Amino acid sequence: MNDNEVKRGTISLHGAQRIADVPRRIFGSFIEHLGRSVYGGIYEPEHETADEHGFRGDVLDLVKELGVTCVRYPGGNFVSNYRWQDGVGPKSQRPVRRDLAWHTTEPNQVGLDDFYHWSKAAGTEIMMAVNMGTQGLQSALDEIEYANGAPGTALADWRVANGIREPMDIRMWCIGNEMDGPWQVGHMSAEEYAVAVERTAHAMKLAEPGLELVACGSSSASMPTFGTWERTVLTRAYDYLDFVSCHAYYFERGAKSPQDFLASGENMKHFIATVAAQADDAKAAHQGDHDIALSFDEWGVWYQDDWNRQEAEWKAQNRVLHNEPWPTAPHLLEDTYTVRDAVVEGALMIELLAHCDRVRSASRAQLVNVIAPIMTQNGGPAWKQTVFYPFAFAAHHAVGDAFAPTIHSSQVHTESYGDVDAVRAVVTFDQQTHSGCVLMVNRDMQQATELHLDLQDLLSNTQFTEIIADEQVLLHDDDPYATNTIEHPDRVKLRTLDITASAEHPAQFTVTLPEESWAGFAFHLV
Amino acid sequence: MNDNEVKRGTISLHGAQRIADVPRRIFGSFIEHLGRSVYGGIYEPEHETADEHGFRGDVLDLVKELGVTCVRYPGGNFVSNYRWQDGVGPKSQRPVRRDLAWHTTEPNQVGLDDFYHWSKAAGTEIMMAVNMGTQGLQSALDEIEYANGAPGTALADWRVANGIREPMDIRMWCIGNEMDGPWQVGHMSAEEYAVAVERTAHAMKLAEPGLELVACGSSSASMPTFGTWERTVLTRAYDYLDFVSCHAYYFERGAKSPQDFLASGENMKHFIATVAAQADDAKAAHQGDHDIALSFDEWGVWYQDDWNRQEAEWKAQNRVLHNEPWPTAPHLLEDTYTVRDAVVEGALMIELLAHCDRVRSASRAQLVNVIAPIMTQNGGPAWKQTVFYPFAFAAHHAVGDAFAPTIHSSQVHTESYGDVDAVRAVVTFDQQTHSGCVLMVNRDMQQATELHLDLQDLLSNTQFTEIIADEQVLLHDDDPYATNTIEHPDRVKLRTLDITASAEHPAQFTVTLPEESWAGFAFHLV
Amino acid sequence: MNDNEVKRGTISLHGAQRIADVPRRIFGSFIEHLGRSVYGGIYEPEHETADEHGFRGDVLDLVKELGVTCVRYPGGNFVSNYRWQDGVGPKSQRPVRRDLAWHTTEPNQVGLDDFYHWSKAAGTEIMMAVNMGTQGLQSALDEIEYANGAPGTALADWRVANGIREPMDIRMWCIGNEMDGPWQVGHMSAEEYAVAVERTAHAMKLAEPGLELVACGSSSASMPTFGTWERTVLTRAYDYLDFVSCHAYYFERGAKSPQDFLASGENMKHFIATVAAQADDAKAAHQGDHDIALSFDEWGVWYQDDWNRQEAEWKAQNRVLHNEPWPTAPHLLEDTYTVRDAVVEGALMIELLAHCDRVRSASRAQLVNVIAPIMTQNGGPAWKQTVFYPFAFAAHHAVGDAFAPTIHSSQVHTESYGDVDAVRAVVTFDQQTHSGCVLMVNRDMQQATELHLDLQDLLSNTQFTEIIADEQVLLHDDDPYATNTIEHPDRVKLRTLDITASAEHPAQFTVTLPEESWAGFAFHLV
Repeated sequence: MNDNEVKRGTISLHGAQRIADVPRRIFGSFIEHLGRSVYGGIYEPEHETADEHGFRGDVLDLVKELGVTCVRYPGGNFVSNYRWQDGVGPKSQRPVRRDLAWHTTEPNQVGLDDFYHWSKAAGTEIMMAVNMGTQGLQSALDEIEYANGAPGTALADWRVANGIREPMDIRMWCIGNEMDGPWQVGHMSAEEYAVAVERTAHAMKLAEPGLELVACGSSSASMPTFGTWERTVLTRAYDYLDFVSCHAYYFERGAKSPQDFLASGENMKHFIATVAAQADDAKAAHQGDHDIALSFDEWGVWYQDDWNRQEAEWKAQNRVLHNEPWPTAPHLLEDTYTVRDAVVEGALMIELLAHCDRVRSASRAQLVNVIAPIMTQNGGPAWKQTVFYPFAFAAHHAVGDAFAPTIHSSQVHTESYGDVDAVRAVVTFDQQTHSGCVLMVNRDMQQATELHLDLQDLLSNTQFTEIIADEQVLLHDDDPYATNTIEHPDRVKLRTLDITASAEHPAQFTVTLPEESWAGFAFHLV
Repeated sequence: MNDNEVKRGTISLHGAQRIADVPRRIFGSFIEHLGRSVYGGIYEPEHETADEHGFRGDVLDLVKELGVTCVRYPGGNFVSNYRWQDGVGPKSQRPVRRDLAWHTTEPNQVGLDDFYHWSKAAGTEIMMAVNMGTQGLQSALDEIEYANGAPGTALADWRVANGIREPMDIRMWCIGNEMDGPWQVGHMSAEEYAVAVERTAHAMKLAEPGLELVACGSSSASMPTFGTWERTVLTRAYDYLDFVSCHAYYFERGAKSPQDFLASGENMKHFIATVAAQADDAKAAHQGDHDIALSFDEWGVWYQDDWNRQEAEWKAQNRVLHNEPWPTAPHLLEDTYTVRDAVVEGALMIELLAHCDRVRSASRAQLVNVIAPIMTQNGGPAWKQTVFYPFAFAAHHAVGDAFAPTIHSSQVHTESYGDVDAVRAVVTFDQQTHSGCVLMVNRDMQQATELHLDLQDLLSNTQFTEIIADEQVLLHDDDPYATNTIEHPDRVKLRTLDITASAEHPAQFTVTLPEESWAGFAFHLV
Repeated sequence: MNDNEVKRGTISLHGAQRIADVPRRIFGSFIEHLGRSVYGGIYEPEHETADEHGFRGDVLDLVKELGVTCVRYPGGNFVSNYRWQDGVGPKSQRPVRRDLAWHTTEPNQVGLDDFYHWSKAAGTEIMMAVNMGTQGLQSALDEIEYANGAPGTALADWRVANGIREPMDIRMWCIGNEMDGPWQVGHMSAEEYAVAVERTAHAMKLAEPGLELVACGSSSASMPTFGTWERTVLTRAYDYLDFVSCHAYYFERGAKSPQDFLASGENMKHFIATVAAQADDAKAAHQGDHDIALSFDEWGVWYQDDWNRQEAEWKAQNRVLHNEPWPTAPHLLEDTYTVRDAVVEGALMIELLAHCDRVRSASRAQLVNVIAPIMTQNGGPAWKQTVFYPFAFAAHHAVGDAFAPTIHSSQVHTESYGDVDAVRAVVTFDQQTHSGCVLMVNRDMQQATELHLDLQDLLSNTQFTEIIADEQVLLHDDDPYATNTIEHPDRVKLRTLDITASAEHPAQFTVTLPEESWAGFAFHLV
């Protein structure tokens, strides 16, 4: 901890507004056919912990420990040149394909049916994406019928023949992925995608009015079409849409300074506000009866410059034709996360929860090996990266309703966002179990902060008189670049948060957050 | 008959203009895979009257009695998610599908080949629609080659292998169905459909220059794009189009008053005039060499509110996922027609004939069970609805040329159209057989009308001296809501029209039409 | 030779600018599935010279003699309704299809694999076109993977199973054919094609960054969208394009006068300048890093009026449906070329070489039987048309760099282009072999020209002192309509060019070109 002066601040629930119920889907994640996410990640039939379907048991255990609720699949860029039909049926008859998005060979040994089995084992909901790059309407309709149809039609009976009698009841469907991105196979202008998504979403809802459909939003806030894309798409297809996607990645080298990186949540706030405004405009234009929610279905820390360099090299090598087979399940995007990265992700999760009235689903990208909280060695162990911890704490404790506490905090200066609060926090409370949590982050790189935490309002008008701490955890390290690796998988772990109950006020606490740290405090009322 | 004062009027051929030859296709109808139109309608292999192909003989007899000339197939909304390939080949291998348009299970036991057999048995021409919703150009080209190609290519030989050696010679093809309708699978803006129809029609005519192609027009005159849709589509695709579709349905609860309902033909007149003007504009823009004719390929009385309610309920029930199989051949749109409905349809047929210079094809929608003149009970009898009668009389007697007689009539007041003639009539005459007919309607709900009918001009400059009545029929009932049902299939039948030849003038008659009645008078010269 | 006054002029390399290296691909040609180009042209298994793959050896010999370097395949208009998948695999299982472009039956006995074998035998590069009419992105991607993919994926292994283990390494791909033409199956507006080509080219380059992609340009300079088409397409898809197609055909009856016909190269110059300007605009708009080159991939003499008449008759006959099988490999576009046609083609080749800084690929259309330099009789001989000669001379001798000599020439008057130089010429020189050639044409219909040819600059700053003639050929006939036919296959041959070295200057010559003649002079330095 830095020895400078300690700052002071307060986090108070007094007069705080309830934001919304915490949607369980906000703790979603993402598995794409990319690198070793699937093959050697969740799936490794030869692994000693593999189950009957070939899925690694050690990874499944970590997924459950992480508390993931909903997993987006199978892409990502991958989906835009994926034929879902390739991934079902007897494994020996599935075609090997080239994947254009990641320049790899796709063996198709895992597909829709297999992922359904994995999701059952993991206890997670499926958020399925359809291919709008090389396929389209008919293929999407067929996939829905294959997945969800009652036995008795050719497509549903194909599923039954493949061993899954019951309908999969997959409710959330993404209509393509990042179709605004020039890198995307089949990328479109906003007007072109608006036509495609309206047509597809309309037909999908004819098939199943109960589906929840997600339109592609912008691939990042820095896309030149950010905002106008959303307006164009949501206005045309409003009637059939439930969600619009938001994607945002952050990394230290991509920020103007490390302090700016720590304040990445400011960018996410701006992103959410902009997209929500476009969704509201679309609703107003239709005099609509429903809000289009935000599905923040790719978020997290990603060292994008590494990938960009890798891809540029790959393309340069291929200026002349060459005919080498493309690699299968190569090591791609296997970023190793630092403590600082984890603090940033903890802060981003606080933003998502603080806006959960509009953000009704989110997927931390991704889950295993590829920009992931969970890493594996083929034939070897699995371990947790630094970013595992704040996610897991939130996923397990942030239940019930979310509240925006009043925060008084010292400021830190950033180049991108000006002066911003060092401290961000969100409070959740579950009326059923009378338990809750506080998630806090100190984004100040230099100085610790001592916070007065006032949860008194939780006791008002109740029969409860006291707040009992269940867990009090801190993520911090004197070395912000400390990481977990296969050699030192537990180099970074949660510490105990320094939190002291007030002697006089049973719901007031003093908590100290070291510089650039994230903390969680879980409690229940008695 | 109402006891009020009897109105008087005249219907005179004196100086009447020939409109055009009566196109036989104007007596077309429509069979869609919808409800029990096909399964349990025309097709019921277990029925005691079924022929070798499983088609009900009693229904075929009624179809012939109705005098239908041309039948549109297989949809309608159904076609926009139909794969024609599903409907050919061995029946046991045809896939069972879900139909999104009507939320039913499609067993595909009837398809193109089967319908061809049925049409041969019924003596009707096929008007085939291709799927522009989930399929498109290639599928349409394949279907044409399958149907019409000379043996020796893969697609034509597939037809031969399926038992039909000779080309089917299907000449009329609808390029999609109601693509302007937001309810349509794959619906399009006018600009989008204009592109699609131009591309498809061009290629279809490359395949067979002799085809007659029908572009989708507006789904109804109340569509917000009515008129501009036609202009956009016809202007872009003029070179390759022969027809533009018109669709109009009427029902009493949908009209501002019962009197307005009876005057529905006024709406149809407006519809025809508007679309004809757009077709002429498109021709002028291209300095074209051919007229685009109107194909009024969905018309009739349809209690649309019943279906809208049914569909809304269905969708509401499905707000959550459910996995019940969709019904097969359910009772859908089985409207029971009143005498009033039949009078309206008789009046609409008069309008079609009165505009047969532009309306060169028409399909009363539909033929069996679904908003239909012919009803069946599964395993039981078939019977005629009220609307059967005026259609059948016209189809059998309106041959040769159509003439617009001069009409002097009392007026009735409508909210939608102002004051309009109570009486509408059209005359046809066949120079080959020297026979003709007069079709008349009295749209006045209150008062009968006594008409002076002057056909003198038919005798001018001929060797004939007299007009001999062949048939004189009246559709009227003191109870305008009288219907035919399975229990009382003959409650409503044609009556004898009260018509008296003038003693002095061999081609002049006095005819009395009760309030809200339709009448037909068939004759020949001697 | 005309007895009038002989004109005089000069062709001088003094101070001449190097244009660019001569791209070998500029001597490309074109084989389309059209008429007897393939069946009975390159392919005739029953022919006595046929090789193991059924390809005629006599035709292969002539192709090699012609010196063709690169052959575009399989269309042309044909490709826009072609399924490449039909043409691979066991020949007995390939489907027979109708080809809409040329109204013929396609037996699919030659396809991608077979043409690969032919190209190996002919020593030619393949320039492959994909179908953008009835197929699109997915089919194009599959075709690339089938052709070029490393074994190990389903599509590449399909090729291996069909007998071709090694990747074909097909580098140049045309994205559709003449999509601006209203006659084209699936024709598009410039905006529609711009979207399609950007999407397709982007994905193709993801698959193989080393591909060289060709966008459709205008079908002729007389298209109403000429210029704007190029601007729209190249601006949108610039990033992924290497070439833009140019197509131009000329024929005597299509020109305002025979003299205008002889000056057709003026039109080609204008074509090149216009398209190059659009390509540069697109580059500027993107601040681009590469030029889009011109692929003049259909050029030559074609008696288009014959085909237009034939096609109109065909369509007129088909106003009513008829079900005759379509002919297989009929005699279509079998134009018989005159000496004048050959002089024109010689002049056009000079223009291509004179603009080879921008025209980096060209395909004389076509190669065998169909508007072709090589003709065959089924079961009989093959022979050379007049146009064979200037192409073959250039293909063999125009190696190395191209230079634009200074030309002083008398003028001829044309209605289309005003007064133009009678003489056009281009010089090539290969620094490796110290050999070169001069290609010359006298477009004056009336008068011969005596030219002073100054190649002195080739000797400057070298160890060489003299220019030795290797070949000196002349194409001319007193009868400009003389042709080669099966009966008189050698009626027209190359003659010896009248060329005299200067006694004083070892690199100066006097050469006489008769009226409307083409000449080639090949030399090396000593």
